Amino acid sequence: MASRIEDPLGAFCTHSRPELPGSGAGSLQGRTFAVKDVFHIAGYRTGFGSPEWLETHGPVTETASAVRRLLDAGADMVGKTLTDELAYSLTGENVHYGTPVNPAAPDRVPGGSSNGSASAVAGGAADFALGTDCGGSVRLPASYCGIFGIRPTVDRVPLDGVIPFGPPFDVAGWFARDAGLLEAVGQVLLDETGPPPAPRRLLRGVDAFDAVEPRIAGALERAVARVEDAVGPAVDVSMAEGRLDHWFETFRIVQGASIWSNLGEWITAVRPRLGPGAKMRLDWAAGLDGRTVAAAKADHAAIRRRIEAVLREGDMLAIPTSPRGAPLKNTPVDDIEIRFRNQAMHLLCIAGLGGLPQVSLPMAEIDGLPLGLSLIGPRGADMQLLALARKLTA
Amino acid sequence: MASRIEDPLGAFCTHSRPELPGSGAGSLQGRTFAVKDVFHIAGYRTGFGSPEWLETHGPVTETASAVRRLLDAGADMVGKTLTDELAYSLTGENVHYGTPVNPAAPDRVPGGSSNGSASAVAGGAADFALGTDCGGSVRLPASYCGIFGIRPTVDRVPLDGVIPFGPPFDVAGWFARDAGLLEAVGQVLLDETGPPPAPRRLLRGVDAFDAVEPRIAGALERAVARVEDAVGPAVDVSMAEGRLDHWFETFRIVQGASIWSNLGEWITAVRPRLGPGAKMRLDWAAGLDGRTVAAAKADHAAIRRRIEAVLREGDMLAIPTSPRGAPLKNTPVDDIEIRFRNQAMHLLCIAGLGGLPQVSLPMAEIDGLPLGLSLIGPRGADMQLLALARKLTA
Repeated sequence: MASRIEDPLGAFCTHSRPELPGSGAGSLQGRTFAVKDVFHIAGYRTGFGSPEWLETHGPVTETASAVRRLLDAGADMVGKTLTDELAYSLTGENVHYGTPVNPAAPDRVPGGSSNGSASAVAGGAADFALGTDCGGSVRLPASYCGIFGIRPTVDRVPLDGVIPFGPPFDVAGWFARDAGLLEAVGQVLLDETGPPPAPRRLLRGVDAFDAVEPRIAGALERAVARVEDAVGPAVDVSMAEGRLDHWFETFRIVQGASIWSNLGEWITAVRPRLGPGAKMRLDWAAGLDGRTVAAAKADHAAIRRRIEAVLREGDMLAIPTSPRGAPLKNTPVDDIEIRFRNQAMHLLCIAGLGGLPQVSLPMAEIDGLPLGLSLIGPRGADMQLLALARKLTA
Repeated sequence: MASRIEDPLGAFCTHSRPELPGSGAGSLQGRTFAVKDVFHIAGYRTGFGSPEWLETHGPVTETASAVRRLLDAGADMVGKTLTDELAYSLTGENVHYGTPVNPAAPDRVPGGSSNGSASAVAGGAADFALGTDCGGSVRLPASYCGIFGIRPTVDRVPLDGVIPFGPPFDVAGWFARDAGLLEAVGQVLLDETGPPPAPRRLLRGVDAFDAVEPRIAGALERAVARVEDAVGPAVDVSMAEGRLDHWFETFRIVQGASIWSNLGEWITAVRPRLGPGAKMRLDWAAGLDGRTVAAAKADHAAIRRRIEAVLREGDMLAIPTSPRGAPLKNTPVDDIEIRFRNQAMHLLCIAGLGGLPQVSLPMAEIDGLPLGLSLIGPRGADMQLLALARKLTA
């Protein structure tokens, strides 16, 4: 088990480092895990990546169900990990607490908001780690750090004891360095062990591939070919029918309004000092009016119907996880917080809007940087995705 | 039991009139009740006072818990009652379905939004009736129709199977012609039978009395004196410390945003034809931005703390239920939907903001019209209020 003082990655919280032994028996016995600092651990404060949040919230009394399931299954918890500020970021850079190391590219950001969890797993400080994913906070750091990450189906993993952020998009997800462990953790968290049926059809999300530079799409082609070897020839599909811009904008508004409805009252009362990305987005979300939000929710309902009509049981949709490898640390705000972020969210919003499971597989590289290929299944296909990930990377 | 075709009051829904026999035994055996058309009755559609809502919603499968409790206690349900349009009104006039008779003053409105329930009880078509009260929809019609009505403590009566409207203010309330039955229904709905402790102190809400015309305050003085005979001399208290305008504005914004968040997506998609009052308020609520709403929520939290500091266990606060007797039917919109409404909400918002129980007692008159005196208790004092109401009016 990691000691309190060792943290060369800067991945763990400094305000508290709870170490909880597992039950001593179970499918995860002997494995260590880290937990993003948005999950409650009884007796400790939850920091949410914000010094003011930490100051204004006392110790909690209940440990999140997801953490308890992992302890019950025998895994040992080695600490709480950093998160981006209030989890409202994809960069991995926290102006208050610093940037955990991206072990795959030390001059690069690890991605966020589950930055510490991704860093800890990629750097070997934990075998696996819990994160959360609303807009991409597990999937993008998995791609940047060259590890496996999954965003499960909405409502499949309990969120009690997790700070509410942006429902209906919030999920608890997890990272691992190999797909076997990613699947084993899934069996515990999803409480599902039976062997899933094999996927029947591979879809290639052409609008998602068209949304990234040709050299990124090209770098992923070999990975897609390996999925085809396992599942069969891919069928091209334009999930958003050329309207991925509209999908992104719909996601952005519904998510922003939800985040503000969860955090706005606290922000109004406490007036925390915010870093540039979180400040920009929260100011924007605060200004959304009810008419705009209701229209986006109606659009969201129509998008869900489209997704359900296209992505059927047995289907797997392949898309790039990210439009790029991990950006350099200290990239200018206009690039990393606006341009890169918006490009990434054109891809990440698809599973979010559909409430779908998505696994990011470290199966490609660009300029020596890891690049994830994502597979998205219909709701409930989590174990199917995990089994396929294991098969593809065995 | 009332027959399907008799409804001289115009209080019952015409789209369906479910009659459900009680269990045949229990404390309410032999009593009849009516149910506002926002509670779900298995096998029927719920109309919500809107033709388009009725058209766009199919029959439901579960009956609301509150209704089931009453049936289990032996009461017979005799029908569903009209509600104001989408329940977002206090007048009792529904542009689509008409205005149920106010039996205490047939040229006057019955008040709303639980207009049909108040009318049915006041006119003897049911012994008691269920309504809902977010901003005053039980209390105001109780005052206008000269009957008893209670808004219980928030979260005390289950709201499953009730159309969500404006949480955290929504409650299920009820009407009766005598306080003994009001209390007996309370024992069933609140699932509380033990005799409550007697109230220890009467408070007179001076800012609330100052907010109504002197002749209205004067008309209630004899009723206050009767409460003093039972509880002891009243102590004057300015609950809002001269800021009842601010309390009203805070309530109005938090309520409007909540209602829009529940109804906005449907309104955006369906574009129903709305009457002038609902249209005006929904247009306003749709335009509220997140910053305004968060500030009002922070103010609401401060107001709750003030209420908890002033209104202590054993206290009863007396205020006017309404600033006037029931207005004439077809009163101009600017008066009934804006001026009268805003005046009433200066009084009605107090219990709403505090999540407090409030009972309106038909103990006064003005110009031959009924006028309710209200007693408000701290959270959980519901049975105490009901026992006092019975004692005062025995």
